[in-house]
Amino acid sequence: METLTLSAGQYNLIYNLISMTLAVMGGAFIFFLAASNRISRDHRASMYVSAVIVAIAGYHYFRIFGSFGHATTLLEGGGYEFQAALFNDAYRYVDWIITVPLLMVELVLVLDFDDSTRRKFIAKMTIAAFLMIALGYPGEIATAQSSILLWGTLSTIPFVYLVYVIWSELGDAIEQESERVQILMRNTRLLILFTWGVYPIAYLAPVMGLEGATAMTTLQVGYCIADMAAKAGYGVMIYSIARQKTIEHGGVQDQVARSAQPAE
Amino acid sequence: METLTLSAGQYNLIYNLISMTLAVMGGAFIFFLAASNRISRDHRASMYVSAVIVAIAGYHYFRIFGSFGHATTLLEGGGYEFQAALFNDAYRYVDWIITVPLLMVELVLVLDFDDSTRRKFIAKMTIAAFLMIALGYPGEIATAQSSILLWGTLSTIPFVYLVYVIWSELGDAIEQESERVQILMRNTRLLILFTWGVYPIAYLAPVMGLEGATAMTTLQVGYCIADMAAKAGYGVMIYSIARQKTIEHGGVQDQVARSAQPAE
Repeated sequence: METLTLSAGQYNLIYNLISMTLAVMGGAFIFFLAASNRISRDHRASMYVSAVIVAIAGYHYFRIFGSFGHATTLLEGGGYEFQAALFNDAYRYVDWIITVPLLMVELVLVLDFDDSTRRKFIAKMTIAAFLMIALGYPGEIATAQSSILLWGTLSTIPFVYLVYVIWSELGDAIEQESERVQILMRNTRLLILFTWGVYPIAYLAPVMGLEGATAMTTLQVGYCIADMAAKAGYGVMIYSIARQKTIEHGGVQDQVARSAQPAE
Repeated sequence: METLTLSAGQYNLIYNLISMTLAVMGGAFIFFLAASNRISRDHRASMYVSAVIVAIAGYHYFRIFGSFGHATTLLEGGGYEFQAALFNDAYRYVDWIITVPLLMVELVLVLDFDDSTRRKFIAKMTIAAFLMIALGYPGEIATAQSSILLWGTLSTIPFVYLVYVIWSELGDAIEQESERVQILMRNTRLLILFTWGVYPIAYLAPVMGLEGATAMTTLQVGYCIADMAAKAGYGVMIYSIARQKTIEHGGVQDQVARSAQPAE
């Protein structure tokens, strides 16, 4: 099994970025759960799904943090020995296979659909997201460039399909919204495109000739930054949309307030 | 006591699936607890029972994760030695003996019964669920095929009885519901049938000639997937039913609002 030598700088960068990502997920979890009561009940489920996503990601970063510490040893002359066999990188894929479909659910929940349309969007988007991650994993653990490219290409098919659904099919629902919500929604869609774009780049690092300690560092740094943006940052965008819609619909309508209106 | 050699692939599959199940239970716990405020108080207890179930299951998966790590050792040439004596598989049965009766309580709580009918259903279904698990355990730890089959058969009796109660006796209550709830209820009952069907298959793995590392892997994978579906997935189904009924009854009616209306 592979053994790498990380420089002190590389080790510290990975170590602290994993810890930072764990902290960000924990912070986002508290915010989404607490701030959900500023969101109308109709759109509140998207906040709960956000909270679940960052909680699960936080759990996995806690495990990745431990696994990275377990797999590295300080060397006499400085630098760190990294034993690939002791580092469980699969935590990332396990995380994505749960959370990426949930990111799609979160997006659909913040939009206004009738029940059957919502169910259809959730079904096709979660299945595509699941396939995107599941097809990427064999390529992640492969060493042959041909396997990496084959699985990478297969995984790209559901990715392109998801981008199409998000940009084209969700368009009608978005056009119903106020101008402010439309702007927020456009930014959210751009965030998805940019952050999701990091994963294939990190995935292709070995193919692009980045090898050994440098490739490993690039991969871990890319994944951490992308995860923070695609989960916590994205959740904040969804929160902004839900909050804007709550304001446009007259605030958080509690039942007490409602029952005070005889017309209802 | 038995010592097995797991391939790196088998080890990673079990290890990551146990961790994944733990993450899913944790995520589900957060969701059921948070989203319970979108459910009318009449049906909210089913969400709390859901949350308790996945919390208890999450605890047991945390223990199973630790126990599996404790029982396995990385071998020099790759692969892992698994010492059965160091792995406490009873965590699963302890989990089921608490949670499976609660799954039945959760189902009854989401339906509308008068108090005495509800108590009767809860009593007979929890007792049957308890017997189903308790009678399976002697067969799980047995090595003789005759014992495995005897206890498996005994455990099947309460299982068949439960299926009968769920399909037949709960039928009247379900027919009172709206068409949408009836569809959700049908899917929930199918989920019970399919997921509960995995346990006897995993249980019978040794009898079906699957032995050693392969049987062990099949068993653990089957149990993890079935547990995720039968607890978290099932909880989401029950949530959908409770949410649908809440919408049909005019949203989350808080008590303060109700008491303001003299007609009630």
